[in-house]
Amino acid sequence: MNATSPPVIGIIGGGQLGRMMALEAPRLSLKIRCLDANGADSPCGRYSEAGCVEGGLKDEAKLLELAKGCNVITMEIEHVSVPALATLESQGVTVRPSSNTIRIIQDKYVQKDHFARNGVALGRYMDCPGKEEVRKAIGLFGLPLMLKSRKEGYDGRGNAVVRTLSDVDSKFDELYNAGKSGGVYCEGWVDFVDELAVMVVKGANGDVKSYPTVTAIQRDSVCRVVVAPARCSREARLKAEEVARKAISSLGDGAVGIFGVELFLTREGDVLLNEVAPRPHNTGHYTQDACAVSQFENHLRAVAGMELGDTSMCVGAAAMVNVLGCGEMRETLKVNDLALGMERATVHWYGKSPAKKGRKMGHVNVTADSESELQTNLKILLDAVGLPEEGGKDGGDIPKPEPLVGVIMGSDSDLPAMSKAVDILKSFGIAYEVDIVSAHRTPEKMMDYARLAHQRGLQCIIAGAGGAAHLPGMVASLTPLPVIGVPIKTSTLSGVDSLYSICQMPRGIPVATVAIGNAENAGLLAVRIVGSTREGVMEKMIEYQKGLKEVVEGKSERLVEMGSTEYLAQMANKNATVGV
Amino acid sequence: MNATSPPVIGIIGGGQLGRMMALEAPRLSLKIRCLDANGADSPCGRYSEAGCVEGGLKDEAKLLELAKGCNVITMEIEHVSVPALATLESQGVTVRPSSNTIRIIQDKYVQKDHFARNGVALGRYMDCPGKEEVRKAIGLFGLPLMLKSRKEGYDGRGNAVVRTLSDVDSKFDELYNAGKSGGVYCEGWVDFVDELAVMVVKGANGDVKSYPTVTAIQRDSVCRVVVAPARCSREARLKAEEVARKAISSLGDGAVGIFGVELFLTREGDVLLNEVAPRPHNTGHYTQDACAVSQFENHLRAVAGMELGDTSMCVGAAAMVNVLGCGEMRETLKVNDLALGMERATVHWYGKSPAKKGRKMGHVNVTADSESELQTNLKILLDAVGLPEEGGKDGGDIPKPEPLVGVIMGSDSDLPAMSKAVDILKSFGIAYEVDIVSAHRTPEKMMDYARLAHQRGLQCIIAGAGGAAHLPGMVASLTPLPVIGVPIKTSTLSGVDSLYSICQMPRGIPVATVAIGNAENAGLLAVRIVGSTREGVMEKMIEYQKGLKEVVEGKSERLVEMGSTEYLAQMANKNATVGV
Repeated sequence: MNATSPPVIGIIGGGQLGRMMALEAPRLSLKIRCLDANGADSPCGRYSEAGCVEGGLKDEAKLLELAKGCNVITMEIEHVSVPALATLESQGVTVRPSSNTIRIIQDKYVQKDHFARNGVALGRYMDCPGKEEVRKAIGLFGLPLMLKSRKEGYDGRGNAVVRTLSDVDSKFDELYNAGKSGGVYCEGWVDFVDELAVMVVKGANGDVKSYPTVTAIQRDSVCRVVVAPARCSREARLKAEEVARKAISSLGDGAVGIFGVELFLTREGDVLLNEVAPRPHNTGHYTQDACAVSQFENHLRAVAGMELGDTSMCVGAAAMVNVLGCGEMRETLKVNDLALGMERATVHWYGKSPAKKGRKMGHVNVTADSESELQTNLKILLDAVGLPEEGGKDGGDIPKPEPLVGVIMGSDSDLPAMSKAVDILKSFGIAYEVDIVSAHRTPEKMMDYARLAHQRGLQCIIAGAGGAAHLPGMVASLTPLPVIGVPIKTSTLSGVDSLYSICQMPRGIPVATVAIGNAENAGLLAVRIVGSTREGVMEKMIEYQKGLKEVVEGKSERLVEMGSTEYLAQMANKNATVGV
Repeated sequence: MNATSPPVIGIIGGGQLGRMMALEAPRLSLKIRCLDANGADSPCGRYSEAGCVEGGLKDEAKLLELAKGCNVITMEIEHVSVPALATLESQGVTVRPSSNTIRIIQDKYVQKDHFARNGVALGRYMDCPGKEEVRKAIGLFGLPLMLKSRKEGYDGRGNAVVRTLSDVDSKFDELYNAGKSGGVYCEGWVDFVDELAVMVVKGANGDVKSYPTVTAIQRDSVCRVVVAPARCSREARLKAEEVARKAISSLGDGAVGIFGVELFLTREGDVLLNEVAPRPHNTGHYTQDACAVSQFENHLRAVAGMELGDTSMCVGAAAMVNVLGCGEMRETLKVNDLALGMERATVHWYGKSPAKKGRKMGHVNVTADSESELQTNLKILLDAVGLPEEGGKDGGDIPKPEPLVGVIMGSDSDLPAMSKAVDILKSFGIAYEVDIVSAHRTPEKMMDYARLAHQRGLQCIIAGAGGAAHLPGMVASLTPLPVIGVPIKTSTLSGVDSLYSICQMPRGIPVATVAIGNAENAGLLAVRIVGSTREGVMEKMIEYQKGLKEVVEGKSERLVEMGSTEYLAQMANKNATVGV
């Protein structure tokens, strides 16, 4: 970057991943050159400022032609020729990631072995040179068993599930041929609750940075939807990022660039590595619109030897929905047209034609301030691409978004009072949850609730309690979130006991206490807190306050008009109260 | 967009504005073709998928060549030939914005006249065919007087300030020649406090949308820095957006595309239109990284006849800093290198060479959750481009960012207690302000403070008061923000009077009340509120809570070790307290 003539990056492959790199390269003062069978007609070739080479990705002569005038060679696909890359390297060409990195990753069995030797958490796996080993693996790991081609697999191609012993022969033969004799291996069945993914970027200087963990929703082994951050516990997210960074760090000095790391979250809360791709990845497309620096920019920075960029999210939540070809272009483009009219949505079209059934034609990114605020647009997009929100074939459901405000109370006897808070949240359209959590009767539940609230994505907790009212204060001591306490009115001391118990917290642990029995105000305070960073919610609060004013002004007008005697008589009739 | 073969957009001009359109076009399935004197070597030409034409922007034959195969012609510069555009139109070519729109805008005097006739707020102006009219204008508007070429001006070129009567001759001649005989007009001096700008996009179907108002900082009449949203009152921001939308709507059906609208905010709070540019504009570059849909995408959408995109900001605050050439490329690139290592910064390099002094070479966008959080990075960038934060030659200072939390109290006697809240905010690195605002002694100041707080960008208010403690509740009734009340301890009733006055608010207006005299907890509650949407702040709160735990565990350990007698003796020695 500090040279006066911009470095040229050669990309092996000219598909959508190369294209998205090529569209970010110019503002970084980098030039792209690419190698693709379709040359200048490929999605990337059209934007390759330093020209493109037409030819096969494994053709050594073409690779040498690509390397001419390039400062570094990278790839957008791992199915390349490792010996050809090694030849380039032997001739002094910088290849990032290196031929050795690709060698390890390209053969999934070698990949598993490498990560196992480096202490990365993995499921069980075994090489299967022949059918006998598959049967042996069934004996060891049980059924079903995941059979995979060691090489050339992608989007579920090269994977087959062995469900019965009689499947072995046909499935083995199918994969053996599909993987072009690269061999077959197997993986013990992982009973996962979620598929997670983490993009990791490694710089030429060894720096390693990870993007936030996402939930990846697959259907028929094809990535369809990505939700960021992942809809699992914060603990699991951090664990996934750690596993992913550890895996990529273990690949050594030559592993320079971005890596897509797919992981399983098991029912027991363990995070296991699934597969690694040595390039920008479908599960990282959300970074284009949700993160400070996208996966494409960070890959370019890494391979160009530049400093790595900020991988943090600039928005509260994001989702990516793949647009797959449905056989007809006009029909396929309908999802795009829908997204163009949507708030905070961005369309990314790949310029491919024709729109063959199942072909990745583009994707839509959508962002929001929180998971619950993302959900409306996400639902519309899912519907448009024919995905149900819940219940799918292989990849599990899209986990429910977490609400913004939690309303809890010590007993259902508090519900009549506390429901006023719920009514307020409903009327302001803020996602909430309600539960009974008692400090004295369910202390373990209370601790779990309070400890996990912020990890789940709640931004505020309303807690109501009466008498020796410990719930709000106890919850406040266990969460970093703002806690609003509602002192429930008691028969013995009219709620003064509740008020003191909630309000008079020791230094260090605040509870935002509202008036005795005034859960409505607790709801309104939660709205103000949520609205402090949300223009739309704040506008609604301003309108609500105007409404209060108008009600009182109306009453004032009537009182002046009627005089107090008539007004009082009417009040008595209506059995209503004026003011509070 | 719903056609199966992507529309081709022809751009007159191949500079950075065209380039930034060209880099967004592919993902919308649009193709770019451009006309530029440097052809394929221009910043835009290299990414023009549908080819580029080498030639002058006013050359009718070249324009016709550009139009070949294009669905629509647009421009990245307004200094084009209106008759040539009209010829294109007469031959059935769609030109957006239309030749008539360009005719109105291109001649700044005609532009002023048009907007004046359409009731758009403007400063005073007058045509000056000769020097006599300039002298007449001085008589009418006074000195200094702003003299401008009617045509061909940009970045301050074509503008001259007449400060004395003896300036008239030389300045007139200079501009008359510079404007290539398009004539000269003048504007009465506007005593502005801020230069504002609003990007407005108008669709082919007549839809009009505006982006948020920004503050534009000029030096030597060149835009150097843009801060979004504008650092003026919310009222002024909304007024500017209204004026801008009104101006662009007045241009009629042919005005399709994005428009940069520059405005003045006067000392009296009036918003006056300054100039309009019929194209993407330097003051709209921040939209690339701060808004759902950038000005470039929205321009493309408008001219392609597509639906307009979301113009709202996805981040709390953003700034754009122009990188001007300093004569030497390596030196010029230093700002980029700096930005590459910065959080939430994005570099946009234009690919121009050489780095002539003052030439616009690129820009850096930086985003944050709030103005105060933006300031650190903004300061570093300003320093790198040689701009002081305050005090400049012509365009005024960069207005100070607003803090996130306001701490107010009824009297300075409350300060010893309230300073604990300030200490907490300081230790958590949260921008704050402190003031004395009394409900009973400065009611007008209180009303202004409360009403403007959210408009200025505050996200939370801490108010302390004692006895008949009205300040927190009164402030809460006038602001949509969360208000935290600190009941100050009183000598008569130990603060119970303060507690009841603050906590027992009527339905509709909540105050988040903390314990009597516990301003520390008010500070901590504000941190929790601010942290509810900020990972970094929340992390610090978690650490703080861990710290509390460790302190108590340490005390517990010592107590168990020493026994209570010795521990009490040591406490007495230290004059310290255990617990709270």
